[in-house]
Amino acid sequence: MYQSRANNPRLSSWVELDSQSDFPIQNLPFGVASWENNDPRLVSRIGAFVIDLNYLHEKGFFQGIELPKDIFKSTVLNPFIELGKNTTCALRDRLSILLEDSTDYAEAQRHSETFLILEDQVQMHLPLAIGDYTDFYSSIEHATNIGKMLRDASNPLLPNWRHLPVAYHGRSSSIRVSGTPVIRPNGQTKLATAESPIFGASRNVDFELEMAFVIGKSNALGHPVTVEQAEEHIFGLMLFNDWSARDIQAWEYVPLGPFLAKNFASTVSPWIVTLEALEPFKVQGPVQDPEVLSYLQYSGALNYDIKLQVAIQPAGAEPSVICHSNFKYMYWNMCQQLAHHTVNGCNMQVGDLCASGTISGHEPNSFGSMMELSWRGTQPIDLGNGLTRGYIEDGDTVILSGYGRANGVRVGFGKASAKLLPAVQY
Amino acid sequence: MYQSRANNPRLSSWVELDSQSDFPIQNLPFGVASWENNDPRLVSRIGAFVIDLNYLHEKGFFQGIELPKDIFKSTVLNPFIELGKNTTCALRDRLSILLEDSTDYAEAQRHSETFLILEDQVQMHLPLAIGDYTDFYSSIEHATNIGKMLRDASNPLLPNWRHLPVAYHGRSSSIRVSGTPVIRPNGQTKLATAESPIFGASRNVDFELEMAFVIGKSNALGHPVTVEQAEEHIFGLMLFNDWSARDIQAWEYVPLGPFLAKNFASTVSPWIVTLEALEPFKVQGPVQDPEVLSYLQYSGALNYDIKLQVAIQPAGAEPSVICHSNFKYMYWNMCQQLAHHTVNGCNMQVGDLCASGTISGHEPNSFGSMMELSWRGTQPIDLGNGLTRGYIEDGDTVILSGYGRANGVRVGFGKASAKLLPAVQY
Repeated sequence: MYQSRANNPRLSSWVELDSQSDFPIQNLPFGVASWENNDPRLVSRIGAFVIDLNYLHEKGFFQGIELPKDIFKSTVLNPFIELGKNTTCALRDRLSILLEDSTDYAEAQRHSETFLILEDQVQMHLPLAIGDYTDFYSSIEHATNIGKMLRDASNPLLPNWRHLPVAYHGRSSSIRVSGTPVIRPNGQTKLATAESPIFGASRNVDFELEMAFVIGKSNALGHPVTVEQAEEHIFGLMLFNDWSARDIQAWEYVPLGPFLAKNFASTVSPWIVTLEALEPFKVQGPVQDPEVLSYLQYSGALNYDIKLQVAIQPAGAEPSVICHSNFKYMYWNMCQQLAHHTVNGCNMQVGDLCASGTISGHEPNSFGSMMELSWRGTQPIDLGNGLTRGYIEDGDTVILSGYGRANGVRVGFGKASAKLLPAVQY
Repeated sequence: MYQSRANNPRLSSWVELDSQSDFPIQNLPFGVASWENNDPRLVSRIGAFVIDLNYLHEKGFFQGIELPKDIFKSTVLNPFIELGKNTTCALRDRLSILLEDSTDYAEAQRHSETFLILEDQVQMHLPLAIGDYTDFYSSIEHATNIGKMLRDASNPLLPNWRHLPVAYHGRSSSIRVSGTPVIRPNGQTKLATAESPIFGASRNVDFELEMAFVIGKSNALGHPVTVEQAEEHIFGLMLFNDWSARDIQAWEYVPLGPFLAKNFASTVSPWIVTLEALEPFKVQGPVQDPEVLSYLQYSGALNYDIKLQVAIQPAGAEPSVICHSNFKYMYWNMCQQLAHHTVNGCNMQVGDLCASGTISGHEPNSFGSMMELSWRGTQPIDLGNGLTRGYIEDGDTVILSGYGRANGVRVGFGKASAKLLPAVQY
């Protein structure tokens, strides 16, 4: 693991910072933004400001780091990530030096009006070209809830669940950045009482509170990544909303898994927080019982204490927080997921995404989907002001957010937010 | 549907042709090849020759067709396909004129030594950047066989099967062109008699005989493609071997579908035969009962009479044909598949692949996988010379081939061939 100077909790920046900001000098995430008439380009973030990396590069502030001339003019982060952690971590450390209060690089501050752009002046873009996207199912509380509802309340986990991190392939093409509306899907559903399916708008549109990790180093086909090597292959993390249509899913998913119930949209946060910036939030994962096979065994703390929450904002109303969860609840950690994914030789490519699956905790208010929170719509949840929800309604905006806090420093992800629009009329 | 002059069965070329060739002047498929010290570039094919499209373009033979200067120097077909069917079909027609016997373009023949390269002198490449890959499950004979073996022999089809073309998302990154070896995957399996799973090389590696169609026109997220529009969105077809590890699949696939059992490798043929070249082979599909929902209804002949076969060639032995099937057996046709895939608003992108699922016929020798041919290994099949197979063994090469024949003209796909290598030692 690269030891980063940027994580030092005593660092403070000459850029003013709101105490509730997700983006102190210890974060310095990466994203893609456009403003004025610029094409999208690579940026970082501090406080309320987006950092124009290309400007700093042109002015020579990254001297000594091996960077191609137009690397920050790319419209996606992939070529930058391809440079490898030695380079990307060195860049983050250099930003940390440039932005530090009482620094030898006070020179940077004189350029601040040019390379710092207020975040409300920019348009954020999907920061990656995502080749393949995999969705895991790694929260034992979530899998247990689903098993209780759909299968056997007394024996909710399937036999394979504790032996391997269950996963399926999702669709990359419909992943969109926070702020992009989602259209309620049409599809086939079958009512329990009906003989035949019907066609129409899904009645049970749901969110799934997830985190996704970004592949930072490719492995060749036939060359597995071990648990020990996995961190070297993970660039960073994003918030991920795996929008789901429960009624479509129920009818289509046996025997080959979810398809149209999921591939109409997924929403990611615009910022990728590097794995290095999350180092202070590492915690021990849950005990795995029975013992896992040797290729999945690990030592140390590979879970992350990242507080997660979901709010629903109905049209014309205030957001109402309906879920408090935590990434630390994951039964299977990311290193195990990546080792399992590649143990058969499957090749991962820079920019691929692996999502966690819905992250639920033990308490009912920590469940990471409406299906669990409202127990399949049978216990609608209260949004205040007389509003209740079984599932997501047209005009609702679903807002995921998350952050870690340690040593007085808060490192967060911003938001993954999207509004649900009515279905296309057929 | 674009009406192509190139399909005229009376056309013959000044290029000599073996009567068993898949590549008469009526085919003119597209692919990507390199030879000598060239970078890979776009090519077509006639008889035993690959056609250097860039050379013909530079010499002005494509005058009047709107083509960017370096379009054929791309390493994948995507930018060419993006030009749209008006352009790609016009190009195929122009090739047909240039290659026709007794043509006004006898000029082309004088360049033949430069732009025709013997196919054994070239290296073929994966011809597409594949964004997303979807695998359907659309052969009723295959789904019935699997249902009989794994579920209920008296009621083998699941309730949804006749109402929608069941499908799942596969992995794009591990799709390789014919000729690339496949490594036997390691993974978790659980013996029926065992309490716990074990780790090791899969014992039941299988092929799946499939065809895949290539998306030729993108649709925006939220904008479905109807059955009637679907042909405009399909560029062409390839042979597809969806390698599968049955023992890994059996343990992992409930409830979210196949994952590591499939994503270690898929093999495609190097040639994409255009949908227009396949027009003469269109036939009526099977009657669909019960009637399908209106968004899946179609009229006319949307199946294709394409004879398919699979051969196994053990190391040091001759190939032995073990399966004769036909693409016309498909219960769900490609237009229905695409309409279903996008009915929820899912966006497809140029270069995406949709595979058919295993194509089995009614007769036992038409089954499109070893699992069916050997009935889960219980009835090993005879390869001659005392060799039998339950599943694929290390050193075996699996060879898919296929062609249509109508009006005395054979239009084929070449081969999708790959050798199975031993598992990585753990």
